[in-house]
Amino acid sequence: MTKPMRHLEDFAVGDVIKGGSLTVDAAMIKEFAAKYDPQPFHLDEAAAEATFFKGLAASGWHTAALTMRLIVESGVAVSGGVIGAGGTINWPKALRPGETIRLESEILEVRPSKSRPDRGMIKVRFTTYDSTGDVVQVLVADLVAPRRSA
Amino acid sequence: MTKPMRHLEDFAVGDVIKGGSLTVDAAMIKEFAAKYDPQPFHLDEAAAEATFFKGLAASGWHTAALTMRLIVESGVAVSGGVIGAGGTINWPKALRPGETIRLESEILEVRPSKSRPDRGMIKVRFTTYDSTGDVVQVLVADLVAPRRSA
Repeated sequence: MTKPMRHLEDFAVGDVIKGGSLTVDAAMIKEFAAKYDPQPFHLDEAAAEATFFKGLAASGWHTAALTMRLIVESGVAVSGGVIGAGGTINWPKALRPGETIRLESEILEVRPSKSRPDRGMIKVRFTTYDSTGDVVQVLVADLVAPRRSA
Repeated sequence: MTKPMRHLEDFAVGDVIKGGSLTVDAAMIKEFAAKYDPQPFHLDEAAAEATFFKGLAASGWHTAALTMRLIVESGVAVSGGVIGAGGTINWPKALRPGETIRLESEILEVRPSKSRPDRGMIKVRFTTYDSTGDVVQVLVADLVAPRRSA
Protein backbone atom coordinates (compact mmCIF):
# COMPACT_ATOMS: atom_id res chain seq x y z
CA MET A 1 0.00 0.00 0.00
CA THR A 2 1.28 3.43 -0.89
CA LYS A 3 -0.99 5.49 1.38
CA PRO A 4 0.65 7.22 4.36
CA MET A 5 0.03 4.95 7.35
CA ARG A 6 -1.42 6.69 10.38
CA HIS A 7 -0.91 6.10 14.07
CA LEU A 8 -3.32 6.95 16.88
CA GLU A 9 -1.79 10.42 17.23
CA ASP A 10 -2.53 11.19 13.58
CA PHE A 11 -6.32 11.01 13.98
CA ALA A 12 -8.47 13.84 15.30
CA VAL A 13 -12.15 13.87 16.14
CA GLY A 14 -14.07 15.39 13.24
CA ASP A 15 -11.61 14.37 10.52
CA VAL A 16 -13.47 13.36 7.38
CA ILE A 17 -11.82 11.12 4.79
CA LYS A 18 -13.48 10.87 1.38
CA GLY A 19 -13.08 7.37 -0.01
CA GLY A 20 -13.21 5.70 -3.40
CA SER A 21 -16.09 4.14 -5.27
CA LEU A 22 -17.07 0.95 -7.05
CA THR A 23 -20.01 -0.24 -9.13
CA VAL A 24 -22.00 -3.33 -8.23
CA ASP A 25 -23.77 -5.35 -10.92
CA ALA A 26 -26.32 -8.16 -10.78
CA ALA A 27 -23.70 -10.87 -11.36
CA MET A 28 -21.69 -9.70 -8.32
CA ILE A 29 -24.84 -9.63 -6.16
CA LYS A 30 -25.81 -13.17 -7.18
CA GLU A 31 -22.29 -14.56 -6.81
CA PHE A 32 -21.99 -13.27 -3.23
CA ALA A 33 -25.49 -14.48 -2.37
CA ALA A 34 -24.91 -17.97 -3.74
CA LYS A 35 -21.98 -18.38 -1.34
CA TYR A 36 -23.11 -16.48 1.74
CA ASP A 37 -26.76 -15.43 1.68
CA PRO A 38 -28.73 -17.74 -0.62
CA GLN A 39 -32.18 -16.15 -0.48
CA PRO A 40 -34.43 -15.50 -3.52
CA PHE A 41 -34.26 -11.69 -3.35
CA HIS A 42 -30.45 -11.82 -3.63
CA LEU A 43 -30.25 -14.61 -6.24
CA ASP A 44 -32.76 -14.07 -9.01
CA GLU A 45 -34.47 -11.01 -10.53
CA ALA A 46 -37.79 -12.75 -11.24
CA ALA A 47 -38.03 -14.45 -7.84
CA ALA A 48 -37.10 -11.17 -6.15
CA GLU A 49 -40.11 -9.35 -7.60
CA ALA A 50 -42.55 -11.15 -5.28
CA THR A 51 -40.51 -10.43 -2.11
CA PHE A 52 -40.10 -7.65 0.47
CA PHE A 53 -37.48 -6.05 -1.80
CA LYS A 54 -39.63 -6.10 -4.99
CA GLY A 55 -36.52 -6.69 -7.10
CA LEU A 56 -32.94 -7.90 -6.87
CA ALA A 57 -31.05 -6.41 -3.90
CA ALA A 58 -27.58 -7.02 -2.53
CA SER A 59 -27.21 -8.87 0.75
CA GLY A 60 -26.45 -6.43 3.55
CA TRP A 61 -23.28 -8.47 4.16
CA HIS A 62 -22.31 -7.88 0.54
CA THR A 63 -22.73 -4.14 1.09
CA ALA A 64 -20.57 -4.53 4.20
CA ALA A 65 -17.92 -6.53 2.33
CA LEU A 66 -17.77 -4.05 -0.58
CA THR A 67 -17.56 -1.18 1.91
CA MET A 68 -14.63 -2.96 3.58
CA ARG A 69 -12.90 -3.09 0.21
CA LEU A 70 -13.33 0.68 -0.11
CA ILE A 71 -12.11 1.15 3.47
CA VAL A 72 -8.95 -0.86 2.78
CA GLU A 73 -8.28 0.81 -0.57
CA SER A 74 -9.20 4.39 0.19
CA GLY A 75 -10.43 4.86 3.74
CA VAL A 76 -8.66 5.38 7.04
CA ALA A 77 -5.06 4.20 6.53
CA VAL A 78 -4.25 2.79 9.96
CA SER A 79 -0.68 1.62 10.53
CA GLY A 80 -0.73 -2.16 10.93
CA GLY A 81 -4.03 -2.54 9.11
CA VAL A 82 -7.72 -1.83 9.52
CA ILE A 83 -8.62 -4.15 12.41
CA GLY A 84 -12.07 -3.89 13.93
CA ALA A 85 -13.25 -5.25 17.25
CA GLY A 86 -16.88 -4.72 16.30
CA GLY A 87 -19.47 -2.03 15.88
CA THR A 88 -22.99 -1.19 14.84
CA ILE A 89 -24.26 -1.60 11.29
CA ASN A 90 -27.43 -0.35 9.64
CA TRP A 91 -28.81 -0.66 6.14
CA PRO A 92 -31.37 2.15 5.66
CA LYS A 93 -31.85 1.33 1.93
CA ALA A 94 -31.15 -1.76 -0.16
CA LEU A 95 -28.18 -1.70 -2.54
CA ARG A 96 -29.41 -2.38 -6.09
CA PRO A 97 -27.61 -3.64 -9.21
CA GLY A 98 -26.08 -0.86 -11.31
CA GLU A 99 -25.47 1.43 -8.35
CA THR A 100 -22.05 2.97 -7.74
CA ILE A 101 -21.22 3.16 -4.05
CA ARG A 102 -18.85 5.62 -2.45
CA LEU A 103 -17.42 5.85 1.03
CA GLU A 104 -17.06 8.65 3.56
CA SER A 105 -15.28 8.09 6.88
CA GLU A 106 -15.52 10.37 9.91
CA ILE A 107 -13.45 10.06 13.07
CA LEU A 108 -15.78 10.12 16.11
CA GLU A 109 -13.40 9.25 18.97
CA VAL A 110 -9.66 8.80 19.61
CA ARG A 111 -8.82 6.90 22.81
CA PRO A 112 -5.41 5.76 24.07
CA SER A 113 -5.61 2.38 25.83
CA LYS A 114 -5.25 2.49 29.61
CA SER A 115 -3.78 -0.99 29.82
CA ARG A 116 -1.75 -1.14 26.58
CA PRO A 117 0.62 1.84 26.15
CA ASP A 118 1.48 0.75 22.60
CA ARG A 119 -2.01 1.22 21.19
CA GLY A 120 -5.44 2.79 21.36
CA MET A 121 -8.79 2.71 19.63
CA ILE A 122 -10.47 5.02 17.18
CA LYS A 123 -14.22 5.06 16.59
CA VAL A 124 -15.09 5.74 12.97
CA ARG A 125 -18.41 6.27 11.19
CA PHE A 126 -18.21 4.74 7.72
CA THR A 127 -21.11 5.93 5.55
CA THR A 128 -21.76 4.21 2.22
CA TYR A 129 -23.75 6.15 -0.39
CA ASP A 130 -25.34 4.90 -3.61
CA SER A 131 -25.42 6.75 -6.96
CA THR A 132 -28.43 8.84 -5.89
CA GLY A 133 -26.60 9.99 -2.75
CA ASP A 134 -28.83 7.92 -0.48
CA VAL A 135 -27.23 6.06 2.42
CA VAL A 136 -27.15 2.28 1.94
CA GLN A 137 -25.05 1.52 5.02
CA VAL A 138 -23.83 3.19 8.19
CA LEU A 139 -21.12 1.33 10.06
CA VAL A 140 -19.76 2.73 13.33
CA ALA A 141 -16.72 0.66 14.25
CA ASP A 142 -13.94 0.62 16.82
CA LEU A 143 -10.54 0.11 15.22
CA VAL A 144 -7.20 -0.74 16.77
CA ALA A 145 -4.59 2.00 16.17
CA PRO A 146 -0.95 1.64 17.23
CA ARG A 147 0.71 4.60 18.95
CA ARG A 148 3.57 6.33 17.21
CA SER A 149 5.85 5.87 20.19
CA ALA A 150 5.39 2.09 20.06
CA MET B 1 -36.46 -24.23 1.60
CA THR B 2 -38.05 -27.08 3.49
CA LYS B 3 -37.94 -25.58 7.00
CA PRO B 4 -41.24 -24.53 8.56
CA MET B 5 -41.50 -20.77 7.97
CA ARG B 6 -42.33 -18.74 11.06
CA HIS B 7 -44.36 -15.59 11.48
CA LEU B 8 -44.01 -13.00 14.23
CA GLU B 9 -46.48 -14.89 16.43
CA ASP B 10 -44.35 -18.04 16.28
CA PHE B 11 -41.37 -16.47 18.09
CA ALA B 12 -41.11 -16.14 21.87
CA VAL B 13 -38.48 -14.35 23.94
CA GLY B 14 -35.99 -16.90 25.20
CA ASP B 15 -36.37 -19.36 22.31
CA VAL B 16 -32.99 -20.86 21.38
CA ILE B 17 -32.43 -22.36 17.95
CA LYS B 18 -29.34 -24.51 17.48
CA GLY B 19 -27.96 -24.06 13.99
CA GLY B 20 -25.70 -25.94 11.64
CA SER B 21 -21.96 -25.83 11.17
CA LEU B 22 -19.33 -25.42 8.48
CA THR B 23 -15.56 -25.65 8.27
CA VAL B 24 -13.41 -22.80 7.00
CA ASP B 25 -10.06 -23.46 5.35
CA ALA B 26 -7.17 -21.20 4.34
CA ALA B 27 -8.24 -21.11 0.68
CA MET B 28 -11.70 -19.81 1.61
CA ILE B 29 -10.20 -17.14 3.88
CA LYS B 30 -7.83 -15.94 1.14
CA GLU B 31 -10.49 -15.99 -1.59
CA PHE B 32 -12.87 -13.81 0.46
CA ALA B 33 -10.04 -11.45 1.44
CA ALA B 34 -8.79 -11.01 -2.12
CA LYS B 35 -12.24 -9.74 -3.13
CA TYR B 36 -13.38 -7.82 -0.07
CA ASP B 37 -10.67 -7.30 2.55
CA PRO B 38 -7.25 -7.43 0.90
CA GLN B 39 -4.97 -7.07 3.92
CA PRO B 40 -1.83 -9.18 4.57
CA PHE B 41 -3.21 -10.98 7.67
CA HIS B 42 -6.15 -12.30 5.62
CA LEU B 43 -4.21 -13.11 2.42
CA ASP B 44 -0.96 -14.89 3.20
CA GLU B 45 0.26 -17.11 6.04
CA ALA B 46 3.85 -15.84 6.00
CA ALA B 47 2.90 -12.15 5.81
CA ALA B 48 0.33 -12.68 8.57
CA GLU B 49 2.97 -13.85 11.06
CA ALA B 50 4.35 -10.34 11.51
CA THR B 51 0.96 -8.73 12.11
CA PHE B 52 -1.47 -8.12 14.98
CA PHE B 53 -3.01 -11.57 14.31
CA LYS B 54 0.33 -13.48 14.31
CA GLY B 55 -1.01 -15.84 11.65
CA LEU B 56 -3.70 -16.14 8.99
CA ALA B 57 -7.14 -15.03 10.23
CA ALA B 58 -10.48 -14.66 8.48
CA SER B 59 -11.84 -11.17 7.82
CA GLY B 60 -14.53 -10.33 10.34
CA TRP B 61 -16.82 -9.76 7.34
CA HIS B 62 -16.05 -13.28 6.20
CA THR B 63 -17.09 -14.57 9.63
CA ALA B 64 -20.27 -12.49 9.25
CA ALA B 65 -20.93 -13.83 5.74
CA LEU B 66 -20.39 -17.46 6.78
CA THR B 67 -22.63 -16.90 9.80
CA MET B 68 -25.31 -15.55 7.46
CA ARG B 69 -25.06 -18.76 5.44
CA LEU B 70 -25.68 -20.75 8.63
CA ILE B 71 -28.57 -18.43 9.56
CA VAL B 72 -30.22 -18.95 6.15
CA GLU B 73 -29.64 -22.70 6.14
CA SER B 74 -30.32 -23.56 9.76
CA GLY B 75 -31.17 -20.52 11.85
CA VAL B 76 -34.40 -18.63 12.47
CA ALA B 77 -36.73 -19.55 9.61
CA VAL B 78 -38.64 -16.30 9.13
CA SER B 79 -41.49 -16.34 6.63
CA GLY B 80 -40.52 -14.14 3.68
CA GLY B 81 -36.81 -14.44 4.40
CA VAL B 82 -34.20 -13.34 6.90
CA ILE B 83 -34.17 -9.57 6.35
CA GLY B 84 -32.16 -7.42 8.73
CA ALA B 85 -32.40 -3.68 9.24
CA GLY B 86 -29.13 -3.63 11.11
CA GLY B 87 -27.59 -4.52 14.44
CA THR B 88 -24.44 -4.73 16.49
CA ILE B 89 -21.56 -7.04 15.65
CA ASN B 90 -18.53 -8.05 17.70
CA TRP B 91 -15.60 -10.33 17.00
CA PRO B 92 -14.09 -11.35 20.38
CA LYS B 93 -11.67 -13.84 18.77
CA ALA B 94 -10.29 -14.23 15.26
CA LEU B 95 -11.59 -17.10 13.11
CA ARG B 96 -8.65 -19.29 12.03
CA PRO B 97 -8.24 -21.75 9.15
CA GLY B 98 -9.32 -25.29 10.01
CA GLU B 99 -11.95 -24.20 12.51
CA THR B 100 -15.51 -25.49 12.31
CA ILE B 101 -18.03 -22.81 13.22
CA ARG B 102 -21.50 -23.45 14.59
CA LEU B 103 -24.43 -21.15 15.18
CA GLU B 104 -26.80 -20.58 18.08
CA SER B 105 -29.71 -18.12 17.81
CA GLU B 106 -31.65 -16.71 20.75
CA ILE B 107 -34.80 -14.59 20.49
CA LEU B 108 -34.37 -11.45 22.62
CA GLU B 109 -37.44 -9.40 21.67
CA VAL B 110 -40.69 -9.78 19.69
CA ARG B 111 -42.35 -6.47 18.74
CA PRO B 112 -45.42 -5.91 16.56
CA SER B 113 -45.09 -2.76 14.45
CA LYS B 114 -47.25 0.16 15.56
CA SER B 115 -47.51 1.63 12.08
CA ARG B 116 -47.54 -1.55 9.97
CA PRO B 117 -50.19 -4.07 11.08
CA ASP B 118 -48.84 -6.69 8.65
CA ARG B 119 -45.43 -7.05 10.29
CA GLY B 120 -43.21 -6.66 13.31
CA MET B 121 -39.58 -7.01 14.32
CA ILE B 122 -37.71 -9.66 16.23
CA LYS B 123 -34.37 -9.02 17.89
CA VAL B 124 -32.10 -12.06 17.73
CA ARG B 125 -28.67 -12.77 19.21
CA PHE B 126 -26.69 -14.92 16.77
CA THR B 127 -23.62 -16.39 18.45
CA THR B 128 -20.95 -18.06 16.32
CA TYR B 129 -18.63 -20.55 18.04
CA ASP B 130 -15.38 -22.07 16.79
CA SER B 131 -14.25 -25.70 17.28
CA THR B 132 -12.96 -24.95 20.78
CA GLY B 133 -16.31 -23.52 21.82
CA ASP B 134 -14.95 -19.97 21.92
CA VAL B 135 -17.11 -17.17 20.56
CA VAL B 136 -15.81 -15.72 17.28
CA GLN B 137 -18.81 -13.46 16.60
CA VAL B 138 -21.84 -12.06 18.38
CA LEU B 139 -24.42 -10.43 16.13
CA VAL B 140 -27.54 -8.87 17.65
CA ALA B 141 -29.86 -8.01 14.78
CA ASP B 142 -33.38 -6.72 14.22
CA LEU B 143 -35.23 -8.80 11.65
CA VAL B 144 -38.46 -8.12 9.82
CA ALA B 145 -41.12 -10.74 10.60
CA PRO B 146 -44.53 -10.80 8.87
CA ARG B 147 -47.63 -11.35 11.02
CA ARG B 148 -49.65 -14.48 10.46
CA SER B 149 -52.81 -12.47 9.90
CA ALA B 150 -51.22 -10.56 7.07
